[in-house]
Amino acid sequence: MRRHEPEIKTFASDNYAGIHPEVLEAIALANGGHQVSYGDDAYTEALQGVFRRHFGDHVEALPVFNGTAANVLSLRSMCAPWEAVVCPDSAHINTDEGGAPEVTGGLKLLPVATPDGKLTPELIDQQAWGFGDVHRAQPRVVSISNATELGTLYTPAEIKAVCDHAHELGMFVHLDGSRITNAAAALDVPLRALTTDAGVDMLSFGGTKIGLMLGEAVVVLNPSAAKGLPYLRKTGMQLASKMRFVSVQFEALLGGDLWLRNARQANGMARRLADAVRGLPGVRVAREVEANAVFAILPGDVADRLRKRFRFYNWNERIGGGEVEVRWMCAFDTTEADVDAFVAALTQELHA
Amino acid sequence: MRRHEPEIKTFASDNYAGIHPEVLEAIALANGGHQVSYGDDAYTEALQGVFRRHFGDHVEALPVFNGTAANVLSLRSMCAPWEAVVCPDSAHINTDEGGAPEVTGGLKLLPVATPDGKLTPELIDQQAWGFGDVHRAQPRVVSISNATELGTLYTPAEIKAVCDHAHELGMFVHLDGSRITNAAAALDVPLRALTTDAGVDMLSFGGTKIGLMLGEAVVVLNPSAAKGLPYLRKTGMQLASKMRFVSVQFEALLGGDLWLRNARQANGMARRLADAVRGLPGVRVAREVEANAVFAILPGDVADRLRKRFRFYNWNERIGGGEVEVRWMCAFDTTEADVDAFVAALTQELHA
Amino acid sequence: MRRHEPEIKTFASDNYAGIHPEVLEAIALANGGHQVSYGDDAYTEALQGVFRRHFGDHVEALPVFNGTAANVLSLRSMCAPWEAVVCPDSAHINTDEGGAPEVTGGLKLLPVATPDGKLTPELIDQQAWGFGDVHRAQPRVVSISNATELGTLYTPAEIKAVCDHAHELGMFVHLDGSRITNAAAALDVPLRALTTDAGVDMLSFGGTKIGLMLGEAVVVLNPSAAKGLPYLRKTGMQLASKMRFVSVQFEALLGGDLWLRNARQANGMARRLADAVRGLPGVRVAREVEANAVFAILPGDVADRLRKRFRFYNWNERIGGGEVEVRWMCAFDTTEADVDAFVAALTQELHA
Amino acid sequence: MRRHEPEIKTFASDNYAGIHPEVLEAIALANGGHQVSYGDDAYTEALQGVFRRHFGDHVEALPVFNGTAANVLSLRSMCAPWEAVVCPDSAHINTDEGGAPEVTGGLKLLPVATPDGKLTPELIDQQAWGFGDVHRAQPRVVSISNATELGTLYTPAEIKAVCDHAHELGMFVHLDGSRITNAAAALDVPLRALTTDAGVDMLSFGGTKIGLMLGEAVVVLNPSAAKGLPYLRKTGMQLASKMRFVSVQFEALLGGDLWLRNARQANGMARRLADAVRGLPGVRVAREVEANAVFAILPGDVADRLRKRFRFYNWNERIGGGEVEVRWMCAFDTTEADVDAFVAALTQELHA
Repeated sequence: MRRHEPEIKTFASDNYAGIHPEVLEAIALANGGHQVSYGDDAYTEALQGVFRRHFGDHVEALPVFNGTAANVLSLRSMCAPWEAVVCPDSAHINTDEGGAPEVTGGLKLLPVATPDGKLTPELIDQQAWGFGDVHRAQPRVVSISNATELGTLYTPAEIKAVCDHAHELGMFVHLDGSRITNAAAALDVPLRALTTDAGVDMLSFGGTKIGLMLGEAVVVLNPSAAKGLPYLRKTGMQLASKMRFVSVQFEALLGGDLWLRNARQANGMARRLADAVRGLPGVRVAREVEANAVFAILPGDVADRLRKRFRFYNWNERIGGGEVEVRWMCAFDTTEADVDAFVAALTQELHA
Repeated sequence: MRRHEPEIKTFASDNYAGIHPEVLEAIALANGGHQVSYGDDAYTEALQGVFRRHFGDHVEALPVFNGTAANVLSLRSMCAPWEAVVCPDSAHINTDEGGAPEVTGGLKLLPVATPDGKLTPELIDQQAWGFGDVHRAQPRVVSISNATELGTLYTPAEIKAVCDHAHELGMFVHLDGSRITNAAAALDVPLRALTTDAGVDMLSFGGTKIGLMLGEAVVVLNPSAAKGLPYLRKTGMQLASKMRFVSVQFEALLGGDLWLRNARQANGMARRLADAVRGLPGVRVAREVEANAVFAILPGDVADRLRKRFRFYNWNERIGGGEVEVRWMCAFDTTEADVDAFVAALTQELHA
Repeated sequence: MRRHEPEIKTFASDNYAGIHPEVLEAIALANGGHQVSYGDDAYTEALQGVFRRHFGDHVEALPVFNGTAANVLSLRSMCAPWEAVVCPDSAHINTDEGGAPEVTGGLKLLPVATPDGKLTPELIDQQAWGFGDVHRAQPRVVSISNATELGTLYTPAEIKAVCDHAHELGMFVHLDGSRITNAAAALDVPLRALTTDAGVDMLSFGGTKIGLMLGEAVVVLNPSAAKGLPYLRKTGMQLASKMRFVSVQFEALLGGDLWLRNARQANGMARRLADAVRGLPGVRVAREVEANAVFAILPGDVADRLRKRFRFYNWNERIGGGEVEVRWMCAFDTTEADVDAFVAALTQELHA
Repeated sequence: MRRHEPEIKTFASDNYAGIHPEVLEAIALANGGHQVSYGDDAYTEALQGVFRRHFGDHVEALPVFNGTAANVLSLRSMCAPWEAVVCPDSAHINTDEGGAPEVTGGLKLLPVATPDGKLTPELIDQQAWGFGDVHRAQPRVVSISNATELGTLYTPAEIKAVCDHAHELGMFVHLDGSRITNAAAALDVPLRALTTDAGVDMLSFGGTKIGLMLGEAVVVLNPSAAKGLPYLRKTGMQLASKMRFVSVQFEALLGGDLWLRNARQANGMARRLADAVRGLPGVRVAREVEANAVFAILPGDVADRLRKRFRFYNWNERIGGGEVEVRWMCAFDTTEADVDAFVAALTQELHA
């Protein structure tokens, strides 16, 4: 039944990777016999303790199936139907979820142009106004991502500044943490430094990109920020019947240091890749390499030839001069050998 | 990390069971290396062939996470925003999905009271009227379940009668097949006899209850009935990034005869259970036992004591006379020993 | 520009009638010069006092354009997205609004079969259960109509019983009052006896059918029941820019006794009509004539011929024996001469 | 019952004005007797001919209550649930409808920054991409306004360029014509030159701001662009029961030249105002005065004092230097005397 070559790696996305062996082992351990469905199982119960050790004794984690759902349900739980979400215009919720926040959540996004994918208090103010005016969708949540879509990171202090400002305005802060583990590992801080301790109210915790088969968690950091999440999860078609198998994956990831090992590996490989290509004529590293993404500018034909050997995506094809900006993503299973082979192939194509 | 006793079985629901070993093995086989995300992987591609062998060369299958999603997305793809769905008032979409069709799908359901959970052309006509009248939500889809929520079955001829009638009215037919494998096994017919060959337009194919870790499929049987499913799946928060691991489970189930073995086991155990309890004074089998559910009426206190030993649900607590109607569900992993132990316990409690 | 014969009356619906002259005069008085738009005008401000005199010092009235909107916005303001509405299956919100509550409001209705269009505590209990269960849309509001779609009335005591029961369950009560004036006039009680004093939380107050050009009001009787109505009205596309012209119509209706005169006229003409036809062989009055509707059963061919002379609607064409049930509706402008001419025509057709 | 001084005018908005006397007269003419409700009346039927004389023999006009509804229903009729709308970021649908397109319509807007509120083919391309990619809300409609929110105008050629480009992309064009009459009058072209003849597919025709009591029309210029509008109008809570009184207002406006007289008056007064203030030291006209709006920059304290005498709105309070940008709007009932009095007051305040 195997239909692929497990040796082949890409630099396309961290969700091209598979299941970390320790996670798969955990799924097998949770198998057998009967467990109560829809989340009343022993594994989901234990999961609360796991998340609390990382994020604080008061938090609650609700596993869902994917990141779009974690984001939409988080936002929906914080917003009345007429309330809106300030976000960078490059946010995943704005650009890559097919319009799910609007179409399925009925949420208006208030996008802000940013230089690096990061909001600041000043940038938030571009959209956070009009409170009490029925003609304006009421700004209620600031949504940021860490790492951002552009591979950049917020420090704990930067997140705190965003949270303080939002709270002063009577707004909540949501953090899209599809790569929060990469961020914490890169900054060498605990997960709570970037979330609970910085004042974040609601977190989409990403599991899939860091080694799960599937699974994200809506983590309620501020219980007064969220309403009706169990109902929103059910009506949002995100309540797993055999939830034990989602929950146990998170336990494998977060119960020990698997999350950290995986994140360090992915980040380290991105640094290795960036360091290697910086020396190559015709290639420029386009953005700070802070987590597990490398953005580079190189001739379009080189990129096209390279892509036939290692899959990756163009990020921006409109920069002119025959060049394109590409994104090279490293995953938990990217090895030094993978990076070196990729750099060798790139070098060949640059000289072809 | 194991937090439960794998020996313990229940009669609560077929989704209390875990992952069939062959399915878990398939997940492991699909692991390793990189595969394109969001469904452009080798396993999802192969899955089309698997479904086509069962349902016809023209069908398309879109894996989603759970049954609520399979139902809501199926219905949404067939209905314009102002169109409505005729269904039995006992339908899962009407009673057990937290209002997801209305809340998330914006769909109006037009429920019909039925004696046994099954629609007929005559019953459909109670709600299928008012075509062209803007004051009435336009009936567009008839939704039936097989097996039904009440454990009853439609024969191929009964489904054909429903489909013929619906089509004459210009309506489509959706089949909620969360237990379609149980139905086909019980009737000893191929899956397509209950679906494609009977005229069904859209199928929610159920995998979770018959041995998957998780996974249902929206199966488009009539391509002209459905619009925009890939977009609806994405905006409906049901697009798995590592889809290979959902698809390969379906291949394990449907590529050989695992589906049939599992369904026969569950159905056979329900028959065994029903046969055994029919002889017990104080217990009445309340409905035809056609698939893997046994509905029984017994004294409420007996049920309560029995439940402490084997978990199951009350179905109807309003029947009076100190009695309750209970539902006992058998799963693919229910064994003869499980049934016999349950019957022994019931016998004890009846005499306690 | 006149395109119709103002002498011609029908018995089709009270919304076939036009604008009462005193209402049109009020519109003209509010004309000229500039007034702040979107409801910050002198007329809308004064309107609060008008409604408070009828319903209590604490109420707030928000004019909207039509009855569907008054109902949907009322319900939406009381329900979180996962909450549901118990109503008679004959309720206008369930049968005659094209699915607006579900399609536009995302609201699940939980319909109950009733003999006469009226809910009781016992009937409410058929759907008011499952509190706290995420698999069930959470019952939050009981919605009743007075007069009902079947022309029947709730007494103040009957409404109080509904409200007391709903409140005990932690639910709110909405009253669809598209004909609340007819009800109050028929029962000879003040408007508040049927609403505020009986415990109703939210009222859709009907203006259009009782003499306005257009206009209904969402009247918040229990301020703790409703959230965000000004925002819901705006996003619900119901905020009139020149609101003064809607508000002043309500003032004309409710500032003096126009509402009562109009309602008494309509009700009285229905009684006159019912009394007259009761004596005609071949015609049976089918339901209690309590407000301004007469339901009658007569031969279908007679109904068809009569309809060519005076427009009206069939209510039920499925009663068999060549008979149909028809609905004859009287309006504020129906005169004794209109009724007498109609009865004469009916008499002729019965003998034709 | 009169609660205001009809002599007082403002420069706040054209919807502060009342009903043009000819329109009020038309309402009175349509009164009396019975007419079929919900749009099957003689006035609404005749209305089709009126709109066809202006826009072409194939068009269909559906009256609705307000501009938000005309816009949302137009867009909704052209978009599948996963499709999106490219618009200027200053568009009324994006900034001033409380989020109605997203909240009630489930529509994603794809906003584009513009210098003057106008889209061009190049600007459209900033958002019109990603066709066929499920991760991107599918661009389906380009929505423009004429006159724009900034008081600027598109010429027929500019609209044609937008339409040609959109159609090449497989997209439709919606025109928010809340001030389309002002635009046509200012450009001295027939209404169809800016709509049908330029290739616009769907028009929100504005009546309220040009002299109606209330009423906008969804005008289907390209019948293949729109689906299900009668149902969308009903479920969108926009179906007037006594529609004759909305339709007859449009007939009064468009049957003769009232629309043109009113628009010329409003536009002319804006020019008069702009010409007068251009000579005043301390005041700068900030944008082209092309229709009935004058945007000016003046000291904030002067604006505040002037506002106490004549109501108007600040447009931008963030321009610094103690100055604000204000918007002065002229209506169909603004007279030369009104303008002169306003200029005199401004002159006084500038010297105070």
